[in-house]
Amino acid sequence: MRIVVLAGGIGGARFLRGLKAARPEAEITVIGNTGDDIHLFGLKVCPDLDTVMYTLGGGIDEEKGWGRDDESFRVKEELAAYGVGPDWFGLGDRDVATHLVRTQMLGAGYPLSAVTEALCDRWKPGVRLLPMTDDRVETHVAVEEDGERRAIHFQEYWVRMRASVDALAVVPVGAEQSAPAPGVLAAIAAADVILLPPSNPVVSVGTILAVPGIRDAVAAADAPVIGLSPLVGGAPVRGMADKVLAAIGVEATATAVARHYGAKGAAADDAPAGLLDGWLVDEVDAAAVADVEAAGIRCRAVPLMMTDLDATAAMARAALTLAEEVRA
Amino acid sequence: MRIVVLAGGIGGARFLRGLKAARPEAEITVIGNTGDDIHLFGLKVCPDLDTVMYTLGGGIDEEKGWGRDDESFRVKEELAAYGVGPDWFGLGDRDVATHLVRTQMLGAGYPLSAVTEALCDRWKPGVRLLPMTDDRVETHVAVEEDGERRAIHFQEYWVRMRASVDALAVVPVGAEQSAPAPGVLAAIAAADVILLPPSNPVVSVGTILAVPGIRDAVAAADAPVIGLSPLVGGAPVRGMADKVLAAIGVEATATAVARHYGAKGAAADDAPAGLLDGWLVDEVDAAAVADVEAAGIRCRAVPLMMTDLDATAAMARAALTLAEEVRA
Repeated sequence: MRIVVLAGGIGGARFLRGLKAARPEAEITVIGNTGDDIHLFGLKVCPDLDTVMYTLGGGIDEEKGWGRDDESFRVKEELAAYGVGPDWFGLGDRDVATHLVRTQMLGAGYPLSAVTEALCDRWKPGVRLLPMTDDRVETHVAVEEDGERRAIHFQEYWVRMRASVDALAVVPVGAEQSAPAPGVLAAIAAADVILLPPSNPVVSVGTILAVPGIRDAVAAADAPVIGLSPLVGGAPVRGMADKVLAAIGVEATATAVARHYGAKGAAADDAPAGLLDGWLVDEVDAAAVADVEAAGIRCRAVPLMMTDLDATAAMARAALTLAEEVRA
Repeated sequence: MRIVVLAGGIGGARFLRGLKAARPEAEITVIGNTGDDIHLFGLKVCPDLDTVMYTLGGGIDEEKGWGRDDESFRVKEELAAYGVGPDWFGLGDRDVATHLVRTQMLGAGYPLSAVTEALCDRWKPGVRLLPMTDDRVETHVAVEEDGERRAIHFQEYWVRMRASVDALAVVPVGAEQSAPAPGVLAAIAAADVILLPPSNPVVSVGTILAVPGIRDAVAAADAPVIGLSPLVGGAPVRGMADKVLAAIGVEATATAVARHYGAKGAAADDAPAGLLDGWLVDEVDAAAVADVEAAGIRCRAVPLMMTDLDATAAMARAALTLAEEVRA
């Protein structure tokens, strides 16, 4: 079974761990968000790709959900001693090695997809991890700070500001000029199932879908497309989905996000093509099932808290079961 | 008093510490060797500049004589886990931060001299530290390894091979096309004394002198030029001066090195201009004094082992005393 997953960082990575446990024999292709990528101290940092790679490869800091296990921060301390910023990004020593290898390979002319494959040679995540694009896309967030509106890098919004102010707009800068990385469209076309894990619908999955060609490929795929709501009881399980959903005028509810993705085949007028065949909401949102189904999307209410591997594997199985129903 | 010192790494740095102790009020300009510089993992590493900066700025590993104090090697371990080499260079975590700042500034277009000044803003070495050039010069050593002659980077010869095979030739690649860094020639011209510390006469001082303009400026300077022999009793106090002297056909003795530098004003035919007004040899080489003086270089035998700060300061004082004699 060939499964394609459009994944962000922590939520996507944890879901993937459950999916691998649920279907160890599946060929899983992960299309990873690179809109969070940032250049720091001359290093190319790919937080979401690395979170997936470290999580599935056994190198993640389990407690934080990002960065390396048993990490230290001596490089960062020394950079601060030089008065060189930014100081808000948690650049760990072990992590620095990953960024050095990546930056050096990119400098030598390898595309990010080839670099990611080389890094995965070490980590063996058990999935094929593809960046959404080899081109530079950077998610910027418009905020008002000290009375002034300005656009900042998503990492600055999330890591430095902890999303403490409203996001006024979210723009995947460069997305329009980008192209899917090699293998992305072919994997979508060949998939038996396409999953949207409980990743951020705006700055993770939304950014991936903003790469020209990817959304249309998902909408046109033969495979059932099943999503899992990252919102439970009207709030994100983790992260700042509520803030960035507000920026694009979408309510922070499981129903609104399903409608935002849209029902597959339901493209109307100049709206983007709908994507979903099925949608999973948490049991606390059971009342939403009827609303989602009214929008033409098959919907089930199941436990959606990734509290441990078993719970997460059960979520993955529920998504695959819903895919079977759609196919039948 | 304005003192100019042409310095390599460990020996030069330790001598400078003694010089500062001997003459705390002096304005010291250090012209640092950059022929040892190397690109590792995309980082620009300047071993000699950093050794001077860390030693005088209080950040050196006192026991090793190079690298940062209280150092760790987690980045290096991780790079090895990626299978990315070389693995023989002792790239410490705290040290990595220096290289990141340097590499980023160079990438932004700052010349090495400006970068070095910026790094020294933190370390406050108490001297003005200038790279010999802003251009790329790389000392290569020709060796025969496994029956094949090849040219390797000096760092590979010294750090990986521990100078265990003969150096067949030493070439400062790029030196002919290089120019002295801003301030170098002016400092030499304005100096009251010019010192050649007990640094390697080939791969440290020799490389500095290979930058077009520097040797002539030293030879033409009004200031007395005083050198201290790095060879004691026919062997280098530390390092591999004997190996690289052999490569250029110079005996590993205090006398031969003095003759190699040459007596100031004694340029003959197509030989390079002579440099030395005075030369200090160790007491064990007292017999060499007459030979050196016969070559037209004033010579004294004094203790030349930098065993501690007092001994090193005494060496610096002896050099300055000899300069006074020359001037008088």
